[in-house]
Formats: sequence, C-alpha cells, structure tokens
Amino acid sequence: MKNNSVAVVLLLLAAGVHSFGFDELTRYVDTHKEEYVQALREWVAVESDSSDITKRSELHRMMELVVEKLQHLGGKVEMVDIGMQELPDGSTVALPKVVTAEFGSNVSDVTVCVYGHVDVQPAQKEDGWSTDPYNLTDINGNLYGRGASDNKAPVLAWIHAVEAYQALKIDLPVNVKFIIEGMEETGSNGLAAMIEAQKDTFFSDVDYIIISDCGWLSSRPALTYGTRGNCYFLAEVEGPKQDLHSGVHGGTVIEPMTDLIGILDTMISPDGSILIPGIMDAVSAFSHDEWRFYQDIEFDMDSYRAKIGVDQLMYNNKTELLAHRWRYPTVSIHGIEGAFSAPGTKTVIPAKVTAKFSIRQVPDMDPAVVEKQVTDHLHSEFAKRKSPNKLKVRMVIGAKPWLADPKHPLYQAGKAAVKRAFNTEPDLIREGGTIPIARTFQDVTEKNIIMLPIGGFDDGLHSQNEKMSRYNYIEGTKLFIAYLHEVAQITKD
Amino acid sequence: MKNNSVAVVLLLLAAGVHSFGFDELTRYVDTHKEEYVQALREWVAVESDSSDITKRSELHRMMELVVEKLQHLGGKVEMVDIGMQELPDGSTVALPKVVTAEFGSNVSDVTVCVYGHVDVQPAQKEDGWSTDPYNLTDINGNLYGRGASDNKAPVLAWIHAVEAYQALKIDLPVNVKFIIEGMEETGSNGLAAMIEAQKDTFFSDVDYIIISDCGWLSSRPALTYGTRGNCYFLAEVEGPKQDLHSGVHGGTVIEPMTDLIGILDTMISPDGSILIPGIMDAVSAFSHDEWRFYQDIEFDMDSYRAKIGVDQLMYNNKTELLAHRWRYPTVSIHGIEGAFSAPGTKTVIPAKVTAKFSIRQVPDMDPAVVEKQVTDHLHSEFAKRKSPNKLKVRMVIGAKPWLADPKHPLYQAGKAAVKRAFNTEPDLIREGGTIPIARTFQDVTEKNIIMLPIGGFDDGLHSQNEKMSRYNYIEGTKLFIAYLHEVAQITKD
Repeated sequence: MKNNSVAVVLLLLAAGVHSFGFDELTRYVDTHKEEYVQALREWVAVESDSSDITKRSELHRMMELVVEKLQHLGGKVEMVDIGMQELPDGSTVALPKVVTAEFGSNVSDVTVCVYGHVDVQPAQKEDGWSTDPYNLTDINGNLYGRGASDNKAPVLAWIHAVEAYQALKIDLPVNVKFIIEGMEETGSNGLAAMIEAQKDTFFSDVDYIIISDCGWLSSRPALTYGTRGNCYFLAEVEGPKQDLHSGVHGGTVIEPMTDLIGILDTMISPDGSILIPGIMDAVSAFSHDEWRFYQDIEFDMDSYRAKIGVDQLMYNNKTELLAHRWRYPTVSIHGIEGAFSAPGTKTVIPAKVTAKFSIRQVPDMDPAVVEKQVTDHLHSEFAKRKSPNKLKVRMVIGAKPWLADPKHPLYQAGKAAVKRAFNTEPDLIREGGTIPIARTFQDVTEKNIIMLPIGGFDDGLHSQNEKMSRYNYIEGTKLFIAYLHEVAQITKD
Repeated sequence: MKNNSVAVVLLLLAAGVHSFGFDELTRYVDTHKEEYVQALREWVAVESDSSDITKRSELHRMMELVVEKLQHLGGKVEMVDIGMQELPDGSTVALPKVVTAEFGSNVSDVTVCVYGHVDVQPAQKEDGWSTDPYNLTDINGNLYGRGASDNKAPVLAWIHAVEAYQALKIDLPVNVKFIIEGMEETGSNGLAAMIEAQKDTFFSDVDYIIISDCGWLSSRPALTYGTRGNCYFLAEVEGPKQDLHSGVHGGTVIEPMTDLIGILDTMISPDGSILIPGIMDAVSAFSHDEWRFYQDIEFDMDSYRAKIGVDQLMYNNKTELLAHRWRYPTVSIHGIEGAFSAPGTKTVIPAKVTAKFSIRQVPDMDPAVVEKQVTDHLHSEFAKRKSPNKLKVRMVIGAKPWLADPKHPLYQAGKAAVKRAFNTEPDLIREGGTIPIARTFQDVTEKNIIMLPIGGFDDGLHSQNEKMSRYNYIEGTKLFIAYLHEVAQITKD
C-alpha cells in the first residue's frame, strides 16, 4: 500500500502539472471500476423506497451506508435529524436523517456542495422487470436495478471522484460538501426546512451547488440549466351521497362524471394548446440566444418518436419540440379518482369524482397566479353548466420552475470538464420535469446551481428495468473529477 | 301431525270455498315465520358469490341446498348441467348446475314457472357493512345479509308458498315449476343455452313465467312490466407505447386522455340529454295510456331526492322523472381504465385509456343500431381532432330491454293478489335497470312474463347493508300464495 502510494506520486510528477493529474485520476478510476460496480450493487440491494412506510428501516440503513462511505474518506460527516413524518392515519414516523459531509476547508478555495438522494421509487419484479430490481444485474454493460441511475450511481460517482483525489494524494482543487437525503422521491419532506435552518452555517461558505439528479438528452453529455415547475390540481365534482346503480337511477340525476368531463374538456385544444385564459401570458419570450442553443443540441426526432412509440409527435422540428418539452407549459390530465377504473363492466354512477391534472409551468409563471387562473376558469365553465353538483378545485403541489444562466462560469467549467472527460461539447439542455429542490436551494441559499447529469437518456427512471450503463457510471466519475478541477478555476466573487 | 292435518281440513271446510283457504294459508305462514327466517339465515350463510372463482364450491353447495329444499316438498327436482365457464387465463371451471323442479302436472291447469337465482354479489365486512354480511342479522325487523333481498328471500318465499298449500293439503291451484340458477350476478352464463335446449321439453307446458328479482318503488306493492336494456361500450384511445412521465415528455405528444375526454364530452349535454345523432329516433312515443299509469304511482320526489342525496333532481315532476328513469334511454360514463385513478399525485401521461360507458336503451331501440350510432359518432368526433392516436370502440354488452303489456291477465291476477294480500292497489312500474333473462325468456319461449317483486325500495341490492324486511318477506310469501290462486283464474288460451 505504502509502496503503491510512492509509485503514484512519482508517476504524478512525471505527468507534469498542466494535466493536474487527470490522466492518473482516470487511470485510477479505470483500475477501480469493478469496486465501483460492487459499491453500486451494495447500495441497490437496499430497498430504500421512501414511499413505502414498511421499508422505512431499509431507508435508515441506506443513510447509514452513506455515512460509512463518507466517513471512510475521512470527511466531517453528520446525520441531521429533520424530524417526523406524519402519516395519513395521523401517526408519525421518523424521517430518514439527512447526511452532510465536508472535505477540505481552505477558505481561499471555492466550495461546492453536491446534492443527491439515495431513496428510490417503488419496484417489484412483478411490475414487469426482467431482473430482480434489487439485485444489480449487468447485461451487456448496462447495470439494471432500481435506483441505479436515480440517484445512487451519481452519488457514488461523486464520492469516488473525491476518493480518487485522496487515493492519489492530489489535493482536492475545491472544498467539497455533500448533502444527501432519503425522501426525494416523495417530495423531499423536511429538507427545505433543514436548508433554511443551515443557511448561515453549513451553506454559508458554499459557493455553488451541483445536482446530478437528471440525465442526458442523447448519447452526448449535457449540462442542464432549467427545469419546469409543477402545479398539480385536484378538481372534484360531487353529486349523490353515494354511488348509484346506473340502470336503476340513470336519468334522474346530472352525473358528476358528465360535469367533470365537460369542464376538463375546456382546458386543452385538440392540438394540445392550453385554453385556460391567461396561462400563456406570463410565459417568457423565446429569445434569439435561446434559439441558438437549441440549434446545437444533438437530438434525433425519429429515434425519440420511436422510443416513446407514437406515429407522430406534436411538433415536427427539433427546436419547437424541445421548446415545448422544456420551456413552454403543458397541461396533462393524469386520471380520475372515484370512478370505475378497474377491468370489467361495472354499471355505476360514481357519486364523487376527482380529476388529477397538472400544469408544468415555466418562467415567468407564478404558481399562485396559475392556481387562480385554473380555479376561476373551471368554476366559470362549471357555472355555465348550471349543474346541481358541487365543484371543488385545489392546487396540491405548487413547485416552481428553476432556470440558470447557461453563460455563467459554472457552465463554462462544465463545458471544459466535458471537453476534458469526453472530448466533445456538451448539449445545453433543460429538463421538462421538476426538481423542486433546485429552486429551494436557489431561493433559500441564493447560490448558483448547476445540474451536471451523468445518467443516460434511456435509463428508465421511475420505470421498469431502470439501469445505469457502466460507461456513464465510470466516465461520469471522470467527468466529476474533471469538474472539480474546472470549477476551481472560477475566480471567486 | 296427523291430528293437526285433520283439524286443518275441518277448519278449511268451515272457512268456505270462496276464500280458497287463504286465511288458513296466511295463518300457516304467520305461525311458521321464524322457520322461514331460519331458512333464510341458512341460505345467507352460504357465500355463493358467483363472481369469485375461489367461492365456487360454496356456490355448488348453495345449489345443493336448493335441491334439498325442493326435494323435501316432493317435487320432481333435477340439476341441469350447463357446462363449463372459461376463465380469463384460458382455464375452465364447472358452472353451477341449474335447478329445475315441478309441482303438479294437471294438464288442464295453468302452469307457471318461477325463475330465481341464489348467487350473490360480493360482500365483505370491510366494505362498510355494519354486520357480518353472511350472518343474517335482525335489526328492528330488517334482516341484513348479502343476498337477503337479491334474490334468496324471494326464492324461499316461493318455495314456502308451495309448502303452505301442501302442508294444509290444499291442492295447488296451478302447476308450479321452478328454474333456479347460480350465475345471475355475472350474466347468467349458460342459462340462455339451457332455456333454448329445453324450450320444447321443460318449457313446453309452461304458460307464464314469474320473476321476483326486483323491488317495489315505495312502501306500496308493485307489479313490474318493463326493464331497460344495456349497451355497454369500451372506447379506447391509444398513443405512446408506454406510460410517459408528464414532466419529461409533456408537450411532445397529443395525450390519449385529452382525446378521450374530448370525444366523451360530445355524448351528453350539460342538462343530461343524449347528443349522439339518431339515438333518440327509435324511442317509442310516450302514450296517453302510459301517462295515465304514471299518475297513479306512489312516489315521493322529496324522499327519493333525500335518499340519493342530491340537492336537485334532473326533472321536477314525478312523471317526467320516472319516465326518464324507466322508459327513456340514458348515457352514463362509469370511469376510465388505464389512467391514474389511485389516491395521490402521480405525474403520468397514460399511454392507453379506456372509457367505460353504457346506454340504457328502451323499446324500440335496437342494440345493433345503437352500436353503429355510438361507434360512428365517436369516430367522427375523433376524426375532427386529427389526432395521431388510435381509437377503438367496442360494444361488449348488448342486452335488450323487456316490456310486457300491463293490461295482460297476468297483471290483472297480480292486482287481485296484491288486493288480497295487502288490501291495496299495486303500483304498475318499470325498472330502470336490466334483467336480461326476462328478454331471453320472452324471445326463446314466447311465453308471457310478469315481474312480481316483494323486495323493498330501500333494500340496498348490490350495496353494503343489503336487507330484506321481515314484513316484505312474510307478507310477500302470502302474496305469492294469493298469486297462485289468482293466476289459476286466467282462462287458458
């Protein structure tokens, strides 16, 4: 061990300063990749499903594994108690503690804080997985397992990046902090309050926040500079006091389903445009600069179309399609609760039906305004029907969008790191989905944020057969190593 | 026993011929009512749920109990094998045998055939029952239990009616046949073929068919002369090959839910009228005679409104309301399969969504024509949307309505029997729901049919806390006794 270290130092000296040891670091990664895969296998084996309360002990164990791993690197590691979770039945259960860690404390250095999560979406073999979702399985270089890409491998890749510097005794170019949570998949319960509480302590010396909880758009690496928000609505129409037999009673009451479908149908035109008055007014204009970014993005319309399996997409050119995916709002109707949704042919007049729909909103839409626009519109349409039924509209999630300036030095550092690790230019992309914690970090800490994904475009997050490719995992680790170097080049404000 | 019989015969002679022994028969019923309740308790205890394949042995046992009961009365009883049921997985399981029985074979007498069923809808305490659904529980004279009203008590009441005549050694005024099945709640699988097969044997000497598988409209006894049919449709819109994340992909595809809601919204106006072209054309005109029937019906709008729990009914006068419940078609949208219908806030673009809706059709609508009208209309509305998604419309049930002539002697006999048993006039009513077997009997055997209900208006069929009141059960038995006498007065054709 000692002899190896000496050899490595000699090697470093031979490599010269200009490369800051990148070649050695990548070689270190390559020679340790089986250990990294094994580490991922151990983490994936923990069924850290944050939505399933019966798995809570697994989730706690998962946080302990994160602590062990970080402590092994000699960091200053803490488990932060973020309180209790209230369950629907009124009982409470402990939230998984948030793990924080700190490596390096050179006040003149840049300090980055890496955010990640180690909880996962539910998964069962019976859902249609080809492999046991909690037994990481390598098939042709793809590592299949729940949480592999979302977000266990990226968290491990960041830890391994720090470990590589340490193992080679190369000074970390920046101070690195970690904040790893276990409730992301169910809404990061307790995290916003913890960030608020530690704003002037843990976060006080953080310069930048890095999130690697997303994926590339294609096989080309990407930097992500925006996410859409999510305004999630429940629209409930209530009529009779209980479900009625549609034969016995059909014809005597205005049915809640008829009313609900009637008002839902006023929200979206057949071509997918939003018809709710005012919604589009606040959407920021598509600038020429922005348009230019889109031109350079590697995106194959045909393979996207084939991947999601439709004959025709909503837009026929790349820019329009991506813009509508990322920077224009959309309305999706997810389903109706309380109606008959099982297989078979039940003849029921459902008494109370609740539509679930959401608006992915974008800058400069304000969730509070969206809530009023949607609520007013639906009540106005409902009033026109003169129905004796009752309508209630509630916005149950109002997560804001997040947008960074892709010209910020953080993104210049990202480009340089991608160039170094992959010898190519990254795509500058946005994310159609919502990562609420990005906006929380921005609003509370007022730090700049970059999303630096290493997940593949086809990793199947939240779906069956989620995977992380060996390529993305290992080369992604190298990217993180490079990024730590590049971000250090930014002149501190 | 012997002595009692002698005493009864003397009593009968004393009572005179004009009463055919009705007073003695009713007295017999009154003195045996606890036995009748006990018999119902034993039948309700059998979980003869025909929809649950794991309960099939219970269903077979139920049919055996029916056989025992009928054999005890000395009837000619048979169990008719109606073949196998194919399950969704392709395997097969034996259908419960149909029980037939015959009492009396005097060719000069009228022969009636009583139809009933002894299978039940599913029920579990956890569904919200106040009592164990399979332990008949008497609360203030109401006998709570699954299948109590639908249809075990009516079947027992018919058997007890025959038994009373026998016990008092009064000749049955008519020949009585029984046909009791065990698959009614799931569509009378195998029964139509059995009726067809025995058309010229078991049914050849049957004059009239009596069905007591429905209920009164109010606290006043009723005779039922019509039911609506049921055309049940599935409308499926298919888009992407799998569900998509609405954040990641929203804005790139025309969503199947938007299309489905769009076409569903073209079927029914806010005031409940059917907008599908042609549907109303075939509906038979509301005759003055019919209108007159409605005037005499006892029906309290306010208590109906309160019972179903709405502020306002679709029509404000009795005749219009009942006409729309019984003799005009309605469209009910039951729900959407494939969308997100669970509690919570899933952000999904469902890939394939299937609406379930049904049209209760009436004379003279033809299901084949309704199928074409609905299918053409939905495809035409869908085409207007120019959607890349695919629409499939299928009619999966096409059960015809049934209508009898309420002036037929069968109904005159019914009125006389009600007068005798309850000293009142019955309501002449129709049923909004569908009893497909009535139409099958009519079409195949070409016999006249009467529906002679004894169930209460508030028995909660198919619902939690189903019950049969002692009053309806016991007085209903007397009604059946009276009906056997009255129907014998009809001059055979």
